[in-house]
Amino acid sequence: MAPSPMIKTEVAAKANGTSKQAARKRFDGVFETLRDEIMADFTAKGMPPDAISWYKRNLEYNTPGGKLNRGLSVVDTVAILKGRELTEDEYFKAALLGWCVELLQAFFLVSDDMMDQSVTRRGQPCWFRVEGVGLLAINDSFMLESAIYFLLKKHFRQEAYYVDLLDLFHDITYLTEVGQLLDLITAPEDHVDLSKFSLERHRLIVVYKTAYYSFHLPVALAMHMCGIPSSSSPSSSFDPYKAAQDILIPLGEYFQVQDDFLDFAGTPEQIGKVGTDILDNKCSWCVNTALALASPEQRAVLDANYGRKDAEKERAVKAVYEELQIRERYAAYEEGAYKKIMGLIEQIPETPTADGSPVLKKEVFKVFLDKIYKRTK
Amino acid sequence: MAPSPMIKTEVAAKANGTSKQAARKRFDGVFETLRDEIMADFTAKGMPPDAISWYKRNLEYNTPGGKLNRGLSVVDTVAILKGRELTEDEYFKAALLGWCVELLQAFFLVSDDMMDQSVTRRGQPCWFRVEGVGLLAINDSFMLESAIYFLLKKHFRQEAYYVDLLDLFHDITYLTEVGQLLDLITAPEDHVDLSKFSLERHRLIVVYKTAYYSFHLPVALAMHMCGIPSSSSPSSSFDPYKAAQDILIPLGEYFQVQDDFLDFAGTPEQIGKVGTDILDNKCSWCVNTALALASPEQRAVLDANYGRKDAEKERAVKAVYEELQIRERYAAYEEGAYKKIMGLIEQIPETPTADGSPVLKKEVFKVFLDKIYKRTK
Repeated sequence: MAPSPMIKTEVAAKANGTSKQAARKRFDGVFETLRDEIMADFTAKGMPPDAISWYKRNLEYNTPGGKLNRGLSVVDTVAILKGRELTEDEYFKAALLGWCVELLQAFFLVSDDMMDQSVTRRGQPCWFRVEGVGLLAINDSFMLESAIYFLLKKHFRQEAYYVDLLDLFHDITYLTEVGQLLDLITAPEDHVDLSKFSLERHRLIVVYKTAYYSFHLPVALAMHMCGIPSSSSPSSSFDPYKAAQDILIPLGEYFQVQDDFLDFAGTPEQIGKVGTDILDNKCSWCVNTALALASPEQRAVLDANYGRKDAEKERAVKAVYEELQIRERYAAYEEGAYKKIMGLIEQIPETPTADGSPVLKKEVFKVFLDKIYKRTK
Repeated sequence: MAPSPMIKTEVAAKANGTSKQAARKRFDGVFETLRDEIMADFTAKGMPPDAISWYKRNLEYNTPGGKLNRGLSVVDTVAILKGRELTEDEYFKAALLGWCVELLQAFFLVSDDMMDQSVTRRGQPCWFRVEGVGLLAINDSFMLESAIYFLLKKHFRQEAYYVDLLDLFHDITYLTEVGQLLDLITAPEDHVDLSKFSLERHRLIVVYKTAYYSFHLPVALAMHMCGIPSSSSPSSSFDPYKAAQDILIPLGEYFQVQDDFLDFAGTPEQIGKVGTDILDNKCSWCVNTALALASPEQRAVLDANYGRKDAEKERAVKAVYEELQIRERYAAYEEGAYKKIMGLIEQIPETPTADGSPVLKKEVFKVFLDKIYKRTK
């Protein structure tokens, strides 16, 4: 008897889970190599043992341990663009670029956690809360950023696209810092002022703080590594980097809106944590949508109850969300975002270039979109 | 009657002062242009008014207002290497590189002041102590760093040495962060442990935290801008960048030792502040020299009194310094450093290269050394 469709799906999911685990293990292995390279150089500078163990601990505590989606997406994108299995060297270089994205994120998370006075991150105390670290975490975050440029120089200095990698990291770093500034001046944790909120402000924060580094950066890095030429190529007016950005920024926006929605609507089993956006005065898609729709009475409830560390007040905000049918509005938003992004993906030309240089593929973006669409965790 | 030598010197000093003031004014003018360029780009990104005024204030509060020695030394070095007055465009580019050094310093000072919990900087409250800023200053320091790469890309992207400028800023940023780490784990303000101190540890901190960015960076930037080729030039085994570094790092070390000494021995009229290194548990040349020479009794005095916020205990430490003749030892150190550095400068070859490419000049280093030697402020 043939296995039922149900069982087939479970088998596939398990096989998929196993291969995901294997992919992660291989990727983690590259981190260990890179950490050893960083530490070998650091030691060769004549550093004393206390500095060596400090920097090593900083790298290990803050870089691995997350979901690694951003880093792994560089490897996945390179494989799709090459259209074949990667050689050992190609895998290593793609994974290295992936770890540079993870280091950039580590730089931001260590410092964001200080600015937000967060308590835990990835199931452990935030780095600045670790005994003996404190404000030194500021300099530690800088050193995570510097590790990016050390690794790029060591492994890519001879490549023609080395300078493009540097420009890209600088540009994206700056845009992300701009997003963090917008977030901090719009929604300080200790001062609630919903008049500063709006869906437009939310969009700006999300695009700058998250979309560029989480979506545009990994794909653009993979494109450079695969030798995809920029618009400066005389053979075409089509700029694949611009086209990729025009898809990935709305995709990143959609991803963060979904994240905001799940913070409100996801169960702890689904999202692996209890949502705290309402308590923490976060400039979330939910509150901004509610503000755009609220009657004067509902607005008064939001003003009086949002961003107050109080479970009763949180419930009052959630009641307004339900009255305003935030769930249905999110479902409509999701359908619209999906269709819009799919439409953009369909416009990517896959016709070979006159000079035979590598071309962008729709598949790169479809994989991202499929991972996000109707995600519940 | 001819003016007396005394009067002649005063006139010269005054003329020198006036031209210094003029040089500073011209240099400050370039900052305003650069700030406007940064803000024009920022505004064009669609940023809201509150973000625009925040970033502008961050740039203005933290970048100008210092002594500008590092920034001005880029301009001075370019002028010496060119051996003639700079064109408008050359001046602007040299000054731009100088302001990038000042932005790097601003990035470090804003964050160092947080880590040290300092109170004032350049006669005004530290940025993080300004009403409404607080921990947001961490992200503000990042944005000062990002301004460097924005400016370099805008003005140097087309130059063959653009990538050298980027590598140089990355390398020096990393080394300075390493120096800050060494300083923080050696001499935390709130925990005195003189067993961690040593003259060797002091040398490491000083070289990494100060010498690279203050002395090597400005000169190497000027050398790149003037087209001085690196060792990769096949015509010679002499590497002018390595030769410059081999002079500028000891020079920077000497500068900081002098700074440490003046914190102890300089009058407030001379140094423009009251020295607080003893109170603040600083890993200064003075205490490290004292530790290296102290009898067990003197060591006990240092252990019991160093780094305690107490004027009486500070006096006890200073008494040990006097017993150990720190003043005489500093004078001997200074003579030795001067002779050693002069000897290194004399070895710089100024013979023209076969291909007519620009060469390094002794004068670059002599100007630095003359400014520092026997300085009392």
